[in-house]
Amino acid sequence: MQSIEILRLSHRIERDKRLSTHIALTTRAFNCKKLYYSGQKDSSLESSITKINENFGSDFKIEHTKSPENLIKQKKKEDYLVIHLTVYGLPLQKNITKIRNHKKILIIIGSELVPPIYYNLADYNISVTSQPLSELSALTILLHEYFQGAQLNTKFKNAKKRIMPQKKGKLVEGN
Amino acid sequence: MQSIEILRLSHRIERDKRLSTHIALTTRAFNCKKLYYSGQKDSSLESSITKINENFGSDFKIEHTKSPENLIKQKKKEDYLVIHLTVYGLPLQKNITKIRNHKKILIIIGSELVPPIYYNLADYNISVTSQPLSELSALTILLHEYFQGAQLNTKFKNAKKRIMPQKKGKLVEGN
Repeated sequence: MQSIEILRLSHRIERDKRLSTHIALTTRAFNCKKLYYSGQKDSSLESSITKINENFGSDFKIEHTKSPENLIKQKKKEDYLVIHLTVYGLPLQKNITKIRNHKKILIIIGSELVPPIYYNLADYNISVTSQPLSELSALTILLHEYFQGAQLNTKFKNAKKRIMPQKKGKLVEGN
Repeated sequence: MQSIEILRLSHRIERDKRLSTHIALTTRAFNCKKLYYSGQKDSSLESSITKINENFGSDFKIEHTKSPENLIKQKKKEDYLVIHLTVYGLPLQKNITKIRNHKKILIIIGSELVPPIYYNLADYNISVTSQPLSELSALTILLHEYFQGAQLNTKFKNAKKRIMPQKKGKLVEGN
């Protein structure tokens, strides 16, 4: 069983609210275990994810951290591979096979300019396309390649509601 | 040669600025041809993409549309397959092979609540995971599966600057 955790750096409530929410939704749906975030503590971000869990299942966690550097050092002691997603890094497609050998991974994604320390703490600095991109797209591709698409079929057992696939229109079962 | 175009519905400058920018960056980097958007016209969104093109190459286009419904009807006449990404749709993984047979595709992604007309205009309503997700993640997965990962290697010929992959640190060639 894999343990994939994410560290989102420098969350700013005003500017990053929606993007950080989308990061949380994506990592939850893709069966990651936990999202840590540094920067401003955001109760509304946390409660929106708690509510999604209550309705649609999963025990995905979201947690604010005041010391992301210490968190990374701790995770390395616990044998996590640390990947920093940055446009300046090495191509994902040339490194994914090695990454996939690891079952415990911490993925760092920035928002504003990322300080050099994170490039040095990471085991891998990885880029998706070497073009200006979105940290959310880069993360999405890394997870999809890591799980080889299997995460698209994730089912959460403790769900109150289930979205039932439809050709047209909407169907949600449960209440 | 494929022609992949995107239609982003109901852009609101205040609320959607960053997410729409990330959508534009991702579709450009993944070798899509054009991003249309409805809602509020946003010169700053458009000029940020023009600037990225000038520096890093590509002739990716971004264009505001006042009548997204007419745009869809016109694209259908031009033989585009129309895919609407929605959490309520059919699973991507069961439909991607059929979709991949088409060389001209228009992908619709919403922001706020999408009116029923778009579910009806679309040839396919497609969901990525049937869980609450991000329209950007869903789009990223659709494009990655459609191109079978080949879009990660896109090179733009008319680039002034190139980001050179590094183990640590940053290297940009050109000026």
